[in-house]
Amino acid sequence: MSLLVIGTLALDKIETPYDSRDEALGGSATYFAYASAKFNPVSLVGVVGTDFPACELEALQAHGVDISGVEVAVGDTFRWAGRYEANWNTRHTLDTQLGVFEHWEPKVLGDLQDAKYVFLANAAPSVQAKALDQCKGAEFVMLDTMNLWIDIAKDDLIAVLKRVNGVVLNDEEATMLTGESNLFKAAKAVLELGPDFVVLKKGEHGAFLIGKDVHFSLPAYPVENVVDPTGAGDSFAGGFMGYVASCQNTQPSTLRRAMLYGTVTASFCVEGFSMEVLSKKSRGLVEERFNELLEITTI
Amino acid sequence: MSLLVIGTLALDKIETPYDSRDEALGGSATYFAYASAKFNPVSLVGVVGTDFPACELEALQAHGVDISGVEVAVGDTFRWAGRYEANWNTRHTLDTQLGVFEHWEPKVLGDLQDAKYVFLANAAPSVQAKALDQCKGAEFVMLDTMNLWIDIAKDDLIAVLKRVNGVVLNDEEATMLTGESNLFKAAKAVLELGPDFVVLKKGEHGAFLIGKDVHFSLPAYPVENVVDPTGAGDSFAGGFMGYVASCQNTQPSTLRRAMLYGTVTASFCVEGFSMEVLSKKSRGLVEERFNELLEITTI
Repeated sequence: MSLLVIGTLALDKIETPYDSRDEALGGSATYFAYASAKFNPVSLVGVVGTDFPACELEALQAHGVDISGVEVAVGDTFRWAGRYEANWNTRHTLDTQLGVFEHWEPKVLGDLQDAKYVFLANAAPSVQAKALDQCKGAEFVMLDTMNLWIDIAKDDLIAVLKRVNGVVLNDEEATMLTGESNLFKAAKAVLELGPDFVVLKKGEHGAFLIGKDVHFSLPAYPVENVVDPTGAGDSFAGGFMGYVASCQNTQPSTLRRAMLYGTVTASFCVEGFSMEVLSKKSRGLVEERFNELLEITTI
Repeated sequence: MSLLVIGTLALDKIETPYDSRDEALGGSATYFAYASAKFNPVSLVGVVGTDFPACELEALQAHGVDISGVEVAVGDTFRWAGRYEANWNTRHTLDTQLGVFEHWEPKVLGDLQDAKYVFLANAAPSVQAKALDQCKGAEFVMLDTMNLWIDIAKDDLIAVLKRVNGVVLNDEEATMLTGESNLFKAAKAVLELGPDFVVLKKGEHGAFLIGKDVHFSLPAYPVENVVDPTGAGDSFAGGFMGYVASCQNTQPSTLRRAMLYGTVTASFCVEGFSMEVLSKKSRGLVEERFNELLEITTI
């Protein structure tokens, strides 16, 4: 069933204690698209500058991503530079250059408006709302955000939260949004804001899903060698929603299995820089790790 | 099947941001005994001073704990005072008075020597070794430790680790013992030291079990109102080993289910000071929460 993601495509400069990359493909929508395309065709709405490498657009297409909604605007592509400390939990943003993303207005055109499954990747809540206004066929909408928007655009965020089915938040964001340090209470407080369910991500400690008629908790896949955590959350969301779209239903049992698929795609993501590992994993390898995770977490 | 725990009985002074207790029953063996007695008869070997309240010994007996191995020595009972910060992850030890525990030598006498299931609760590794020497009938031995012993008695600890079947460690201890910050790698490094399996506890983030023929990972039970985390690890071990002893086997499937029972008894423990909540929960309520946890963690 038709799946649409609206968000950023970026070129990242990433430093870890062990290695680094420059001008590597990044962006919330990109990670989401690479992960979700393993399960279901996905269309991407976003913007890049004229400096964006053509080969990256071709690679997205080759992985089953419809890029008809990717605008090429005159100017530079969104660039982000960051550095991780050895514990992976501390990330320093070194530089952010919004480039063509700064004044971009999302345009969801033609057939893309009919998408039933829509993911509003991390962007200003007002941009997310404008994109959602154009998604006439949307039946199941999920949203991601970040601490910046909770800080400077909380009212806009709360307004768009009322319009979505599900939200993905990490532990820090959930606490910041609700003032609750107990994550279970925080997730319940987010539910009060409107969405039917919340996926609360805790990085290496796993994630849980809570909603009106569902409660599921899952440890992370035990990755022994983390290479770059960038994009883990978006890859999780991509695996989650790609699987849900492929099932054509949003039953609790589907959402539970989707938590495992999201965990698997996120685990591949962090095993390499950019899409280096995630892009190379076939659906067969996804299923193999799914079964391994199921074995590890089932009595 | 016969279960024996050797460790401390204490009187604790505990401060949290919300409440406090003084002269409350504590100690590693005590928490273990209260938790494990819900599943299987348990005998306790330890020492108290002449100041130890008789009613606490009677309460242990009333909960099915055999206290024939509890020595009453002239002097003061082991006392510990601590304070928790609001995030529960930071604990300050304010005072430790070893009292009669300082020069205590464990004595495992008579029928207690025949126990097949033995838990060496947190104590100096040399004391654990002396206790184990006397456990002639031991077939399945588990051990707990703490950062102090890793710091000042690492060689003794490594020596006793070679003699046990399983070890329970928290994340910090596992990293300190092995130098590995990746917990999965740390647990594997602990296996190299001798035990058949490691239970690695991560507090609010759950626990995992890894051994030669078993790998199981489990989130924590979602406790909304933590009152006092003291004793959570010992209550986990008690639930785990009490269940294993009641099954009279140590198959991987038993150890997996034991992880859930340990999680349940630990969750009751942290919902109250001392044994205030843990002691009041019947086996029926344990089963109820076990089923709830199973429902939350199964697709």
